[in-house]
Amino acid sequence: MKVAFQGERGAYSESAVYTFFGASVEVKPCRDLSEVFDSVDKQDSQYGVVPIENSLEGSVNQTYDLFLTHDLKVCGEVIIRISHCLIANPSTSLDAVKAVYSHPQALAQCRNFLERLGRELIPTYDTAGSVKMLKEKGLKDAAAVASEKAAEIYGMKILAREIQDNTENYTRFFVLSHEDSPMTGKDKTSIIFSASHTPGSLYTALFEFAQRKINLTRIESRPTKQKPWEYNFYLDFEGHRGEAHCAEALKALEKSALFVKILGSYPKAAQR
Amino acid sequence: MKVAFQGERGAYSESAVYTFFGASVEVKPCRDLSEVFDSVDKQDSQYGVVPIENSLEGSVNQTYDLFLTHDLKVCGEVIIRISHCLIANPSTSLDAVKAVYSHPQALAQCRNFLERLGRELIPTYDTAGSVKMLKEKGLKDAAAVASEKAAEIYGMKILAREIQDNTENYTRFFVLSHEDSPMTGKDKTSIIFSASHTPGSLYTALFEFAQRKINLTRIESRPTKQKPWEYNFYLDFEGHRGEAHCAEALKALEKSALFVKILGSYPKAAQR
Repeated sequence: MKVAFQGERGAYSESAVYTFFGASVEVKPCRDLSEVFDSVDKQDSQYGVVPIENSLEGSVNQTYDLFLTHDLKVCGEVIIRISHCLIANPSTSLDAVKAVYSHPQALAQCRNFLERLGRELIPTYDTAGSVKMLKEKGLKDAAAVASEKAAEIYGMKILAREIQDNTENYTRFFVLSHEDSPMTGKDKTSIIFSASHTPGSLYTALFEFAQRKINLTRIESRPTKQKPWEYNFYLDFEGHRGEAHCAEALKALEKSALFVKILGSYPKAAQR
Repeated sequence: MKVAFQGERGAYSESAVYTFFGASVEVKPCRDLSEVFDSVDKQDSQYGVVPIENSLEGSVNQTYDLFLTHDLKVCGEVIIRISHCLIANPSTSLDAVKAVYSHPQALAQCRNFLERLGRELIPTYDTAGSVKMLKEKGLKDAAAVASEKAAEIYGMKILAREIQDNTENYTRFFVLSHEDSPMTGKDKTSIIFSASHTPGSLYTALFEFAQRKINLTRIESRPTKQKPWEYNFYLDFEGHRGEAHCAEALKALEKSALFVKILGSYPKAAQR
């Protein structure tokens, strides 16, 4: 079994893969999120693991958008704690660091620490990829923000640990596949829908869930990119699409909304 | 009168300032969005103009978050069309370009053009700032994605125009001040609220608007950053907070929601 993730070896997404599938699974690192979707689409990988939201920074917009252009299902979710380290080549001391490389979201999550440090910040496409780059180029006057695991994989030194502003820093990932998951009794369902641009249309859509006492755990809007200022809504709710009250809500929503796409039902991850 | 905006001279935000206030206003370029908020907060600038959403990329999360840590009002909105150019030093030809610099959102908006071009993409903090940097460093093998205005200001060459994927590319800005605006009859109101984490709480909040036939033009969620997986909702609706039906909805919302912050009422921008 092969599981695709975005980033270099040592990325947080790779940790999410092992948390969900166990340590013996084969992994396929991908340069970007669309490569993860494509890899599962073409059945080169059986599963993909993609970040969907971070408890501090919010949604990963590109992941949301990719669900519109791919016909994949969500068959699981996994939540991991993010603990950022400042990582450099073994001979580099903190004083020697002139620039810090990392993914913009990781840099944003360490804003306080990095502002105190006062070095140049250089955004890159990946946390672990920045560590790999420092190693390959032998840069002695730079550091990267990434996981402890990334320092370990590339044989690099940890200059500081737990440098994120907020220790309650979690990322939630979706597990992608061609099918969603059977009912377990503790499930969630994710959908995309589009409400018409008239007063009360979003309200009408949410009414179908509220009147059946279905708990909405997340609502997110994204531009349709078809017409300016029109939005698709991404909704997560508690329950499996096979349960009667959920199936009824979805059927009713399909009547009132412009379009509905069911991404899938899956067992709830352990709550943090 | 002085108006603060984020970015270097030639930034799209600067165009938004002139569109709203006219060409004779004094502008204050700020390095980041929090500097714009601070400048208005401390009354160094009378107004600030900050991007809130783009019709393709969605919300500017940092702007949303800054409303929580500053006590400023929204007194206006302005929408401008984004038309990206590929810009380089006057002696640089397209063949010579090895890397393209710009703000990550601008690079994302030109994804198709840039993928065909196949050069290295280097994210920076600002579109116009990238043009300025190319000029100051005299880089002959690089280009930047920015506005025609930026090319003009820095005396640079336009290698390609209208390189964005979607010609329907607009950015909406908020005008910040210490007071919101009086009623004109064609107004919008922006608020932040937090719904409790129980079934139907978001529905209950939206009910107050739906039953009064108030049109919601935008809903956006952002992590509270206080507790993982708790969200604040940012809502825009048609009407002025001084109109009876809007005032009643807000009063009712204040009873059901955990907290409500009224950002202000302001005249609607021309619809695109």
